[in-house]
Amino acid sequence: MIRAYSGISLDGFSAMPDGLPVWDAMPSFSPDSYGLPELEKDRAAIVMGRTSFDQGFKDWLPRWPWPDNKVFVLTSRPLPKEVPDGVLASSGGPADLVKQLQDAKLDGDVQVLGGPRTIQAFMEVGALERLELCVLPILLGKGIPMFDIESNAFSTKAWAAAREEPSKIAKRTMRLESHRAFPDGAVELVYSPE
Amino acid sequence: MIRAYSGISLDGFSAMPDGLPVWDAMPSFSPDSYGLPELEKDRAAIVMGRTSFDQGFKDWLPRWPWPDNKVFVLTSRPLPKEVPDGVLASSGGPADLVKQLQDAKLDGDVQVLGGPRTIQAFMEVGALERLELCVLPILLGKGIPMFDIESNAFSTKAWAAAREEPSKIAKRTMRLESHRAFPDGAVELVYSPE
Repeated sequence: MIRAYSGISLDGFSAMPDGLPVWDAMPSFSPDSYGLPELEKDRAAIVMGRTSFDQGFKDWLPRWPWPDNKVFVLTSRPLPKEVPDGVLASSGGPADLVKQLQDAKLDGDVQVLGGPRTIQAFMEVGALERLELCVLPILLGKGIPMFDIESNAFSTKAWAAAREEPSKIAKRTMRLESHRAFPDGAVELVYSPE
Repeated sequence: MIRAYSGISLDGFSAMPDGLPVWDAMPSFSPDSYGLPELEKDRAAIVMGRTSFDQGFKDWLPRWPWPDNKVFVLTSRPLPKEVPDGVLASSGGPADLVKQLQDAKLDGDVQVLGGPRTIQAFMEVGALERLELCVLPILLGKGIPMFDIESNAFSTKAWAAAREEPSKIAKRTMRLESHRAFPDGAVELVYSPE
């Protein structure tokens, strides 16, 4: 199963303005928090975008966090020479990577680690089977949004026009698979994109 | 209790780009959906901003939706002469309105109907006791956001700077009071702002 698991603030951010994941704003967060241990247990591979890779690589290198997982990096540029075995560049885009993942006959789940654009790209090619959001009980006010959104203010003119003909929106529907709350007030919502 | 109850899409919108509430994007929505009947049962008064009032007034007038509730409109301008009894202009801002509500000795809850800016203003003066969000299983892509947010993209420079000194964020913490799912996959999350 191809899945993404992300924290999200109530106001929609997956990361703080400087790029730190939004989990880090929770005093109760640890790598064993929320559904992360279960995610890890079932995982055979990780997918990430090049921005996420470059962001983390130097920190990860001394003690590689995924010794038991294959890691696929979506990128058009070569990876640094020092990458551990099992870390592969995938240059054909998300649809091509999905084929690569199928051919790899993995014995477990694929976690699309991020960033948000990579998760969205997997959703757009119809490959994301689970979108798992851990809604944290905080408002950040600013940061890096989980979803690619376009915001507008209320306009009397648009409202009047909509009374003649409601504006069409290209909404995407998700199926809720499960939900549960954690002691610190985070709520995990698991969806299948439809 | 002063409370706000709003639908919110997974990507954070409380209304569609033209101002229609996000509930309207759910085929299963009716005025008896979700927690709305319970909200209505316990309600003695409604608060709304002037933009929301002007948006709805002409539609409401022929068959006033809140004959049993007082309605307070936050506004600096006089209300139209045709407003029914029990509809009052409140011109002193949110903090003043809170006093007005206390003095009114209401026999039930106050619902801050909206818009988002009015809900936020009540939260900022510390008067909102419950923020109840009904997270709808849809992505809109564009619309009017529930929260006043400032978004940025990931920046390598900001990330590098944060390693020296993590950026400070003025996060607001909420306490989760309850959560429940509805048959169409909407999930109601009830918070107390802290």
